Amino acid sequence: MPDPTNSSPDPLKTDLRRVDINPDFWYPLAWSKDLKRGKTIGRRFGRHPIALVRPSEGSVFALEDRCAHRQVPLSLGKVSGEAVQCCYHGWAYGRSGRCIDVPYLGKGKLPNGVRTYPCREAGGMIFIFPGDAAKAESVPLPALAQVDNPAFKTRHFSPVVKCHYTFMHENLMDMNHQFLHRRQMGQIKARFLGQDAGEGFIEARYSFARSGTQQPLAERLIFGKHHDDPGREQPVEEIVSIRTTYPYQSLKIHDKDGDLIMELFSVYVPDSADGMSTQTFGLLSVLRPKTPFLIDVIWPALGVFTNRIFEEDREIMELEQSAWRDLGGDHNVEVFPIVRKLRDLLKVSGIVREQTADPVVV
Amino acid sequence: MPDPTNSSPDPLKTDLRRVDINPDFWYPLAWSKDLKRGKTIGRRFGRHPIALVRPSEGSVFALEDRCAHRQVPLSLGKVSGEAVQCCYHGWAYGRSGRCIDVPYLGKGKLPNGVRTYPCREAGGMIFIFPGDAAKAESVPLPALAQVDNPAFKTRHFSPVVKCHYTFMHENLMDMNHQFLHRRQMGQIKARFLGQDAGEGFIEARYSFARSGTQQPLAERLIFGKHHDDPGREQPVEEIVSIRTTYPYQSLKIHDKDGDLIMELFSVYVPDSADGMSTQTFGLLSVLRPKTPFLIDVIWPALGVFTNRIFEEDREIMELEQSAWRDLGGDHNVEVFPIVRKLRDLLKVSGIVREQTADPVVV
Amino acid sequence: MPDPTNSSPDPLKTDLRRVDINPDFWYPLAWSKDLKRGKTIGRRFGRHPIALVRPSEGSVFALEDRCAHRQVPLSLGKVSGEAVQCCYHGWAYGRSGRCIDVPYLGKGKLPNGVRTYPCREAGGMIFIFPGDAAKAESVPLPALAQVDNPAFKTRHFSPVVKCHYTFMHENLMDMNHQFLHRRQMGQIKARFLGQDAGEGFIEARYSFARSGTQQPLAERLIFGKHHDDPGREQPVEEIVSIRTTYPYQSLKIHDKDGDLIMELFSVYVPDSADGMSTQTFGLLSVLRPKTPFLIDVIWPALGVFTNRIFEEDREIMELEQSAWRDLGGDHNVEVFPIVRKLRDLLKVSGIVREQTADPVVV
Repeated sequence: MPDPTNSSPDPLKTDLRRVDINPDFWYPLAWSKDLKRGKTIGRRFGRHPIALVRPSEGSVFALEDRCAHRQVPLSLGKVSGEAVQCCYHGWAYGRSGRCIDVPYLGKGKLPNGVRTYPCREAGGMIFIFPGDAAKAESVPLPALAQVDNPAFKTRHFSPVVKCHYTFMHENLMDMNHQFLHRRQMGQIKARFLGQDAGEGFIEARYSFARSGTQQPLAERLIFGKHHDDPGREQPVEEIVSIRTTYPYQSLKIHDKDGDLIMELFSVYVPDSADGMSTQTFGLLSVLRPKTPFLIDVIWPALGVFTNRIFEEDREIMELEQSAWRDLGGDHNVEVFPIVRKLRDLLKVSGIVREQTADPVVV
Repeated sequence: MPDPTNSSPDPLKTDLRRVDINPDFWYPLAWSKDLKRGKTIGRRFGRHPIALVRPSEGSVFALEDRCAHRQVPLSLGKVSGEAVQCCYHGWAYGRSGRCIDVPYLGKGKLPNGVRTYPCREAGGMIFIFPGDAAKAESVPLPALAQVDNPAFKTRHFSPVVKCHYTFMHENLMDMNHQFLHRRQMGQIKARFLGQDAGEGFIEARYSFARSGTQQPLAERLIFGKHHDDPGREQPVEEIVSIRTTYPYQSLKIHDKDGDLIMELFSVYVPDSADGMSTQTFGLLSVLRPKTPFLIDVIWPALGVFTNRIFEEDREIMELEQSAWRDLGGDHNVEVFPIVRKLRDLLKVSGIVREQTADPVVV
Repeated sequence: MPDPTNSSPDPLKTDLRRVDINPDFWYPLAWSKDLKRGKTIGRRFGRHPIALVRPSEGSVFALEDRCAHRQVPLSLGKVSGEAVQCCYHGWAYGRSGRCIDVPYLGKGKLPNGVRTYPCREAGGMIFIFPGDAAKAESVPLPALAQVDNPAFKTRHFSPVVKCHYTFMHENLMDMNHQFLHRRQMGQIKARFLGQDAGEGFIEARYSFARSGTQQPLAERLIFGKHHDDPGREQPVEEIVSIRTTYPYQSLKIHDKDGDLIMELFSVYVPDSADGMSTQTFGLLSVLRPKTPFLIDVIWPALGVFTNRIFEEDREIMELEQSAWRDLGGDHNVEVFPIVRKLRDLLKVSGIVREQTADPVVV
């Protein structure tokens, strides 16, 4: 994380939507299952197009997705053994990014190659390290919910939202926005219980009280593990804790006995040069109920329910982005202390975008 | 109206398409019937998004359509009694614009509210006063054609045209543009009879001569009241008078006896930040013929006819706007004196847009 | 061609995609068959909209496609005898561009007219001379493949590609890009044989060697004239020569006896103000085989084959343009000497675009 005393201008005085995400972390760009052996796909990290290549043998590697010759995407090319050949004139690049063949040129005078990115696979995702490659080894991958825990079943999701990544951190951290989901989740009121903060992270804890209407089925299946125990009394006093461990975010639900019953991991990856579009990667791990097959029965309904919730969030965050654009800057009046702290964390952890370097997106 | 001697730069030397409409007038933003009790809708006046709210009881009110918290539209919110609650975190605003509740905050420390606009209903429209609210009381609503006269039947229309509002004033005032409608209206030739001008208004009077082709049915029903008197001789010598009473426009047709047989009221409301899109509100009042039910029989045909005419006008005005954009400014060569005077009226009555304040529309 | 020693800044140091095409040449804007007698159509040469008018009698003429009055397209107007009338208020313009009638104005005080362009028809195309009209007489029309030679059958094509015209010259000149068409044409490898260059032109010659897969039918019909002679041995040693004779381009295939068997003529006409869209006009002349009707039988297949090839080219050139836009300039690393010379020819023959004059395209 950059030293705030050293950075100029003062990030805390910067428009939060002009703070780029810090590239010195591991970011997923694709699901592992979407990249077959002998294939390549093209993704973006902010203004950087990146080709992910799974060669005939060996691990995935990541190259700048522009041929050194005429800058067309290498991800449209042909994987031949350990190398990828540009689709246009056949220039070939290996794992190191070096140009190893130009079919119509002598071997002695090969041109320069392309940039590479450290690359790893974990939890069904392909991660790259877009920042200073020298730091990649010492920066750990994040904890990936309960993806490796057989007691949990984990759902993947990866929607694109046309907004700055910071809106997404704020959205999840401020559970008072349950008002937005009142049609999906009934009249839930969040009660703020406390917070925790430290180097590079901030956490909020809430309990939820229901007023009035019936609890929807799918929500009951998320928020209460005792759905197969109809005799149990309402309300269930689960604790919901939301934590931004820069640049990742998690949400955990513990039941009143302190047992984890749900965990969400999400990371918000800018996928456009102007920073105003974000590719989310999320893992939602739900504790399997005691009746073993029940989780499979309710799984589709759970998908529909969480998609609806997410659609509401997507729409409102895109409207926030739209207002920012109309007003030419951030006019938020934040009154909730934990969100103010979160905003500061996102500012000091990120990279202030130079105004003059703003790309013109046509 | 601003004092032209006092304004800088000289409005008469300004590009007419860089003159914003003067906000110190009443402008309709919606039809009354489109806003049900207990609902809210979002509209725009130029760069200002405005929420119209019809509370459970009492009259409609108008608020800035951005929550003070995170700037999302209040018009997506929930009307509760006399207040509207933002859909995101439930902040509530009353008629005065004050924030009267943040559900998760103590009452003692409520944040500031949002801007309000004077608001009135008349002639089936909801008007707001977007300028200096102190002037609203002393500025009258416009005359609304014959909307309250039972001898007339009145049609509503509200098309959006992607052009600056000034093109629309010029289009209607210059009746030589009947050439554009030659396929709909036959070979009509307008004859300019004279003009009238004064403080804030200008009027042109025309008669029409027909050359050659048959008069279409629907037009006969507009331009001649004696359609149920087949023995009458052509041509009918109606007088058409078009008046811009800033910022409104009207067109009246009197028959040769001097009786009003048709009246059009229209107002052009900019509905985008760059001023290049206009929401029209129009009332077309047609004198009911002596055979009482005849007007109802011909009413649908009249609608089709006027829509076709308007489509031709819409297309040509959008092409004018497009040429202005391509050329980077106004290159009109106006030879018709009444239109030159109209242009001056629109310039001195409007507000010269500051070049540097031009919004970037993405 | 402009004198490079005299131009400032040095065109050779200019971004090739900021070099506008030189207007002092003849450019086609339409196919003759697309402009019926008594009609007008609107086209563009770069930032210039141009109305082509075919009057009731006499030859086609070309006017600036903006009425002098309100700048709407004359090409939407009505052709009356030798003149075209603007669709809006009926202003009329003749072949000379002079305004010859304003229906509601005295003849004595007619306003100025519009710009005209020298105009000719040849080879089924309507050409205009967009530059200095005084030079038009002395600049010849280009050679139009074998369009007038009955021994050949000629196909027309006119796709739009969303890229700068210079990409299209480079694409065709560099035959190493056969790699792009490997799925359509099999494993063809071009062998560079030599080059020729002179005042305003550059030419590359290649032979083709096939490795492995079967030659597709349609290609055989283009590259070998002896398809009706099954006893002949492979490989056919045709010579392909590609020449840019600024601003035109041609591709000729001669068989081993030195006879011409195919000729392509193409010209790339910028059709947007920003120069990033190009209307191609092409003629593809194929020598008729000895069995007379065979060419008609294979003609549809030939169309499908060449369209597929062109689609691959279109896609890759638009990706090149897209990379240029993302990177804010030309980052090509050209290693092929003939293409480097071509780039220099395009630079010194064109007009360096002034950066500040860049149009904002909305």
